[in-house]
Formats: sequence, C-alpha cells, structure tokens
Amino acid sequence: MKKIINDPAAVVGDALRGMAAAHPELLRVRTDPALIVRADAPLAGRVALISGGGSGHEPLHGGFVGRGMLTAAVPGAVFTSPTPDAVQAAIAETEAGAGALLLVKNYTGDVLNFETAAELAGLEGTDVRAVIIDDDVAVKDSTHTAGRRGVGGTVLVEKIVGAAVERGVDLAGCEAIARRVVGRVRSMGVALTGPTVPHAGSPSFTLGDDEVEIGIGIHGEPGRERIPMEDADGLVARLLEPILADLPFEAGDEVLLFTNSMGATPLIELYLAHGVAERLLAERGVRVRRRLVGPYTTSLDMQGMSLTLLKLDDELTELWDDPVRTAALHW
Amino acid sequence: MKKIINDPAAVVGDALRGMAAAHPELLRVRTDPALIVRADAPLAGRVALISGGGSGHEPLHGGFVGRGMLTAAVPGAVFTSPTPDAVQAAIAETEAGAGALLLVKNYTGDVLNFETAAELAGLEGTDVRAVIIDDDVAVKDSTHTAGRRGVGGTVLVEKIVGAAVERGVDLAGCEAIARRVVGRVRSMGVALTGPTVPHAGSPSFTLGDDEVEIGIGIHGEPGRERIPMEDADGLVARLLEPILADLPFEAGDEVLLFTNSMGATPLIELYLAHGVAERLLAERGVRVRRRLVGPYTTSLDMQGMSLTLLKLDDELTELWDDPVRTAALHW
Repeated sequence: MKKIINDPAAVVGDALRGMAAAHPELLRVRTDPALIVRADAPLAGRVALISGGGSGHEPLHGGFVGRGMLTAAVPGAVFTSPTPDAVQAAIAETEAGAGALLLVKNYTGDVLNFETAAELAGLEGTDVRAVIIDDDVAVKDSTHTAGRRGVGGTVLVEKIVGAAVERGVDLAGCEAIARRVVGRVRSMGVALTGPTVPHAGSPSFTLGDDEVEIGIGIHGEPGRERIPMEDADGLVARLLEPILADLPFEAGDEVLLFTNSMGATPLIELYLAHGVAERLLAERGVRVRRRLVGPYTTSLDMQGMSLTLLKLDDELTELWDDPVRTAALHW
Repeated sequence: MKKIINDPAAVVGDALRGMAAAHPELLRVRTDPALIVRADAPLAGRVALISGGGSGHEPLHGGFVGRGMLTAAVPGAVFTSPTPDAVQAAIAETEAGAGALLLVKNYTGDVLNFETAAELAGLEGTDVRAVIIDDDVAVKDSTHTAGRRGVGGTVLVEKIVGAAVERGVDLAGCEAIARRVVGRVRSMGVALTGPTVPHAGSPSFTLGDDEVEIGIGIHGEPGRERIPMEDADGLVARLLEPILADLPFEAGDEVLLFTNSMGATPLIELYLAHGVAERLLAERGVRVRRRLVGPYTTSLDMQGMSLTLLKLDDELTELWDDPVRTAALHW
C-alpha cells in the first residue's frame, strides 16, 4: 500500500485539518468530534441540514457543506459511522430554532447512530427528523445494510434539499422534498479494483486482471456478480438497465443523469461513459435535462463508476438549478 | 489493463462526445479536428485565449473552457501534441479581430505545432502570440522537452489570463500578464504509480511496492530520483523545498498554493497533503492567500500529486478572484 498519509490511524483528522486550511472562508472544521460546518452557521430561521457517514467517500459529505447545500457534515473514521455524540454536536452547533433534518445513507450503523442522536436531541426539545437514502438497486440486503444501500443519489438529495433550506422552506417541507427525491432516484455501480483502507493496508477485495464486479457498494461490499471485463458500451448498459427497470424510468421521462467516478477512474473515461449513457437513454426516449459528471461519491482509491438517475419535475429542476457554493459543487 | 472505454484508438473522440453531452450550455465540441470551444465564441473585441496539448490530463484543458478562462482548447491524442491545423482551426473559430493568445506547455511537439499555427495565422493577417509555460522545477531537460516542462502552473496561467481577457485587456496586455505569471509560478510532482496509456495497455513505467519517483512529469517522463516511500510530511517537503529555493519564495511572500492530484490519488490524501504544505509554508513565514485543491492537471490513472506555488500581488490576486464558469472551475 502506498498512500500519501502520515499515521494511518490519524488520516481523517489530518485530512480535516487540510480541508480547514483549504477553505477558511467557507468552512469551520472541528476534530473532536469531527465536524465540518458552514462558516456562517447557525442560520436563524433556517432548517439545519446535516449529513455524514464514514470517511473515504470524499468529497461526500464535507465537500458539500456551504450555501445551498449542507449546514454540516459529520465524518466518521474511514468506512465507519460517526458516533451519536458527534451527530448531536453537529445538531447543537447548527440548529437555530427551525429544527434539523438528517440525511442518512442506509447503512445499519449510520441509521442507528443518526436516529439515536435525533432521539436524544428530541428529548431536549429540538425537532429533528431523519430521512434514509437507499438508491442502490444492485442488492436488496448487503453486508452493512438491511434494505438497499445509499450511494450516489445522496449527492442529489443533499443539493436539492439544500436549495429548499436556502429558500426558507420549513422542516416538514424539507423532509417532504427529501422523501420525494429518495423516491425518484436510483443508482448502480461497477468496480474494476477494490479500495484500500489506510489502516488495513491491502485492498478490501481483489479482482482479476480481466474481471469486474457489477453492483458493488462504496465500502467494498459485494455486488451482484463478477464478470469478465467488457467495453464501456457493455458496462454502462449493465448499470443502466437495472436502474431503468427499477423505478421504472420510461420514454418521455425527464431525468438528471449523474455519472460518478469511484475515485481512481479518470475523467477521460468518465466522460466517455457519460456519452454512452446519454446515447442509450436517447435510444429509450428518456430525456436527459440535467447532468453531473465527476468523482463525487467515491470509495477511496477504487477504480470504477456508478450511474444515478433522478426523475425530474419542474420543482426539483428549479431546486437543482439554484445557486450552490461548496468546496466540491459551485454554480 | 482495465479501462472504461470502447475502441482504444477512439478514446479521445468518444470522451469528447461525452463532454459535449454533459455541458451543452457551456461548450461546442468538434471531433475533426478535435476542438472544445466556448458556446458563445467568437467574442467581439476580446482576445481569443487558446490552449491545448495531449489528452490524458483532464480536466486540463477542455474543462477550463468557458467564461473567465479559455476560449478554446485543442486536445491531441493521448499524450500527443495536437497538429498545427487543429490549432489553426481553433484560431479561425474564435479569433474576432482582437488577436489570439496561445498558452503552450513546454514540450517539443506542442511548442513546434502551436508556433507553426501562429505563424500560418500571422501570414493570413491575424495577430497571434504564444506564451510558453515551463513551471516544473524538477528537471532541466526531459525526454519530451528542451528546458523545463509545463505542468500544474498551466491552470493558474489559464485562470488569470482568462480573467484579463474577460475584462477586455488587449492582446499585448494579456501576453504581458501571462509572462508575468509564468515568471512567478513553480511546480514539482511525485508519482506512486505510472500512468497507463489506453492504446499501450500497460503502465509507462512501474515502481516497486515501496518506491516512489520524485520530480515525475505528467506523461510518465523520468523524474529526479526513485526513493523508498515516505510519509506525507516527507513527500510534501521533498516537493516544496526545491520549489521554494527556485524562485525563490521567501518569508513574507504571499502565494497561491495549488495541491494537485495526478488522477488516482483520492481527495482524502490530497487534503491531508495540502494541510502539510500549509504547515510547512507557515513555518517558513510564506503566507498562503489563495488555494486550489483537486485533480486539475492529471496523468490518466497515475497515483501521485504535485504542488504549485504562485507568488501573488494585488493584480494577480484580483484576476484569480474574478468569476469563472467552466466545467472544472466555477466561482
């Protein structure tokens, strides 16, 4: 294992210090417990929008903290849920009377720890709701999950609900929008290599030189099947077909297409795959109205990609288009 | 080799089609010759700002086409200079009476082909100037270079001169600003793995499991030395010391620090390395006033990073801060 790190046990804190140094005007970063908070939080009258989860998926979630997206992110250790007290600290630091909404990827530890924090905050009189994101169509249950996993769709939920928060939508309204996005977003990914966790020192799994795993999770969890390597047309179709069939997405639907790198797959391949996905969707009559292409929900140094489709309507499109100013997304 | 591609010989064109699909409101993309052009070009009264070079360094250069940065980018085949006729086509499509400025990374093929295109356009009466970028302090001459190589500093030149173009600065003024940035910017990189060119199928070079190469180029060119792997503190110091000594950068200087991933090094490591660089600069009394952290000048799937320092002054800082709207940089 070669990684640009110091003490493997201190990677998350060390990276947070670098992030704090890189974005002083945008973020306030704490290391005990680890929190990434909007520099201008708390915001009076606005819902506190909080997400988090294990580290190793950067820029998710800390790179999405800022105007028009998250109020705070709670990073756990690499591929490990943050503790309830860290989530509570995020609520305490950002909630300003309008309540807090927790956006939680569906992994057993995350769900337990975020819901525990919500309950404890509730006992103290703060209105805290949690919405679970489970967009991965690959597998029903997984090593870390009861039900489907939360993956790339999380970025879209955070952007769209963040815009609602910025517009001053109240807690119930933000929760309803989050649930509506979750209901309309589906994802699936493929791994060409396994990710290497710093304190483990070797890949979570290994694939042959001519082998890929379809339906992989973002923590090295097993997917649907291992198959011989295919070309981009083949791989993209293998991701897109189950996504389309699941919701389903049909001819005439307007969608946001998010083509995501798992980390080590370079942009030249990612744009190529995006072009294939656009072509396949056009052949089906599905209309791509918005796009996002880049490494936004990663798995450390894993090579691979995922596709996410969101069925748009006018309200969701407008919220997507609203301005955003974070380390990883600006417009 | 596992890459998400179709025909290895068609990768650049296929990726350009994906880029065109991803950014229809921002870019106009041509494939014969390959060009990425601002959707609203030509812009009357504005200098046409054009860069380019071999593909495989994405988002450089096509990801930097747009308002406040490049007017056009000319991508060659992977790690191969674009032809003079492609550069001429970019000039013809974007020049609108105010002349064209070519920003050229210092590689023998790029310099020859861009300067040939400038001469041919000059014969037809268009005022075209070329500025050569040679910010890499690692080696004096290299396999593809007489003199120093152009690497990460290119992004900073393109952003700052692009802001000048947007302000309406004339050709001579833009050329002078470009030369001033080139005179004040220095870079150096380290590779943990070699890059794999699609039509080659195996890495350009291989490093041992505990070995890195200091001073590497962005096409797999040799660096200064191969050494045993070190921690982030050690590697960052090995990049920073030669950069600081070269200009030199001294206590009291105000700088922009650009921490760049070579492609496959994930953001968690990159932020960690950025934090180390900020600490080392603070210890020297060098004041970091602006930052850029991310994979902006890559080498396909190479693991590694580079550091770039630019000595700022008020004018350069203002131009850096000006709005930019491209696929890869927005603010």
